[in-house]
Amino acid sequence: MPAIAGVELAGRRDPANRHARGLLLVRLAPGSAAAGMFTRSKTAAAPVVAGRESLHRSGGRARALIVNAGNANAFTGAAGLASVADLCAAGAGLVGAREEEILCCSTGVIGVPLPATAVTGDLPALAAALSPSAWQAAADAIRTTDTFAKAATTQARIDGAEVQLAGIAKGSGMIAPDLATMLAFIFTDAAIAPEALRALLGRAVARSFNCITVDGDTSTSDTILAFATGKGASHRPVTDPRDPRARGFAAALGALCRDLAIQIVRDGEGARKLIEIAVSGASSSGAARRIGLAIANSPLVKTAIAGEDANWGRIVMAVGKSGERADPDLLRIEIGGQLVAAQGAVHPDYDESLAARHLRGDHIAIKVDIGVGRGKARVWTCDLTAGYIAINADYRS
Amino acid sequence: MPAIAGVELAGRRDPANRHARGLLLVRLAPGSAAAGMFTRSKTAAAPVVAGRESLHRSGGRARALIVNAGNANAFTGAAGLASVADLCAAGAGLVGAREEEILCCSTGVIGVPLPATAVTGDLPALAAALSPSAWQAAADAIRTTDTFAKAATTQARIDGAEVQLAGIAKGSGMIAPDLATMLAFIFTDAAIAPEALRALLGRAVARSFNCITVDGDTSTSDTILAFATGKGASHRPVTDPRDPRARGFAAALGALCRDLAIQIVRDGEGARKLIEIAVSGASSSGAARRIGLAIANSPLVKTAIAGEDANWGRIVMAVGKSGERADPDLLRIEIGGQLVAAQGAVHPDYDESLAARHLRGDHIAIKVDIGVGRGKARVWTCDLTAGYIAINADYRS
Repeated sequence: MPAIAGVELAGRRDPANRHARGLLLVRLAPGSAAAGMFTRSKTAAAPVVAGRESLHRSGGRARALIVNAGNANAFTGAAGLASVADLCAAGAGLVGAREEEILCCSTGVIGVPLPATAVTGDLPALAAALSPSAWQAAADAIRTTDTFAKAATTQARIDGAEVQLAGIAKGSGMIAPDLATMLAFIFTDAAIAPEALRALLGRAVARSFNCITVDGDTSTSDTILAFATGKGASHRPVTDPRDPRARGFAAALGALCRDLAIQIVRDGEGARKLIEIAVSGASSSGAARRIGLAIANSPLVKTAIAGEDANWGRIVMAVGKSGERADPDLLRIEIGGQLVAAQGAVHPDYDESLAARHLRGDHIAIKVDIGVGRGKARVWTCDLTAGYIAINADYRS
Repeated sequence: MPAIAGVELAGRRDPANRHARGLLLVRLAPGSAAAGMFTRSKTAAAPVVAGRESLHRSGGRARALIVNAGNANAFTGAAGLASVADLCAAGAGLVGAREEEILCCSTGVIGVPLPATAVTGDLPALAAALSPSAWQAAADAIRTTDTFAKAATTQARIDGAEVQLAGIAKGSGMIAPDLATMLAFIFTDAAIAPEALRALLGRAVARSFNCITVDGDTSTSDTILAFATGKGASHRPVTDPRDPRARGFAAALGALCRDLAIQIVRDGEGARKLIEIAVSGASSSGAARRIGLAIANSPLVKTAIAGEDANWGRIVMAVGKSGERADPDLLRIEIGGQLVAAQGAVHPDYDESLAARHLRGDHIAIKVDIGVGRGKARVWTCDLTAGYIAINADYRS
């Protein structure tokens, strides 16, 4: 992972601190732009409520990010918001910024009050250890039950100048023993104005983090933040997301988000297989995404794939239950590149042994053409195994 | 189970006939009213498409019901509709009725053509065996991987005359190895006009079969049919569902549907526990039902209960993901009658050992008050165990 000019990181693990088994501090150069996408949950955690407000008050500027893993600070009422304010005040003091320029994220157990001192006590030591190269420690610090650290990097050109992008993520491991949370933090040294960064992030997330599912359950804490320091190779700042000069950056941001999102799915609880579902021919791209997610969230589809059973009837069922426009006689289904069903019936040349061989692999490709329009989407999920049940049912036993 | 005047049944099992391992024939007295509720799937099976059409053409009249278990006749195109027409023609000949007065249901594997002769060959023998008391054989004939036969009966009074109600159901066992289907057939000797029967059935289903879930997957074939023969104790026919004389009947029909629906959930794949979720204080009754189903369909809630873990944070998460109006500070959660959380935090008197004791039982009671309105609903589901994965993933191995 390359250094990103204007970004310094420090992370630590401390299993004895149950509120902050992992702790991450990131310092951003003055003038850095920030943009965020947050969970749509109606029972969102305190840092989500506070983060939305801070980005609004700061006009999309940030100077530091603080993340604790162990306690989600969710369902903690006014006390939870007070804890976030204490963290922001401590961070602001350390980096010399205003409180609304400090963003906090928490992941972990729900419903347990978060004492701010469990986090703030360790911040001075982290501040002293800040380094532009501490990516591994940073990615490790935000892990909960993730089985591997998640990071990705890429480059793009704006006005001929090469800019760097790097990101880290966590999820969808289960927090001891509460719910999965997805966090992702993306950093670039490009000069992008806050409004433009928000629009570019929104587009990238729509086709990556918003197209993955492990179990269909939405966390109280899901957060994706992007930071642009403007401290890299010199170029005129991007202020309009439709600026043709930003096309390469937008593509790179999209690829980076997709890379991180797929890493999250690969690490889904109990997952042994990555499943990619490409939907085409739907009545709109939104309809295509909803059909893809109906297939990806179907326990019957996911258990069939776990069992390496080419049970395509369950895909027909999932298309039907999505509620989107469809007609069985127009449906086309491919598994592993082989045409399985078309024109309302199984295809005469369909060879189930070929499909079974594909399902024995660990990257499963399903294509569904709905045949009623031009809407397209790609969605990723994992199989549903006894391992998922063991992780989530037997945690305390 | 009592005889229902005007209803005769015959059922048989034949494991060697893969299209009709089970076969049910029901003959209804001339003049019987019929009403149906069908799956909302956009990839509905041929008998669903044909059944809707028949009820429309007959004006809500039926003389016979034919059900085969083994082949769902789903995703079978025009050939599938032709098979249903052949079954209806055979049934019409046997009972001396018009083809649109014969209703057919199929449950089983998807995507396999149904040769009509696999069903019609056995119909004459069944017609010869028709009897008013063959409830056990009838309930057994529609089973697939159901572990027990499902039936219920009750009575009501209309104009002081006692009328009988009886019903049988199947689900949510998995079909070798395709998707779960829920079928329910309800019979009464009361005199209810078709339009009134449809309205009364709709209301009863909204609070019973539409409030249960095993895995959130919707079958291509779900069907609920009600038949009223008018051959019981004499009373003036009910032609208006709002007729005060029908109140007792409506309540009995509701109780019968709830009884059958809960039997289906109890027999969910791999289920060891019945979970009842009572939601109150939602912004509307529809919102309450959607919140209840969000909890009931959450794999994280269902695995926690399978693990007998009082992980109430997952209930907070599921309320949040429902998308309905909610505020964590107003939420009230009870498990097994004990107050767990209120006013945005865990309740100070909450005793987790009491909750754990409740979860070791096989009937789990969860109450959630949203605190924003007066909408109420009750929803039933089962826990999600390794048994579910084994049934659905490892079937062929």
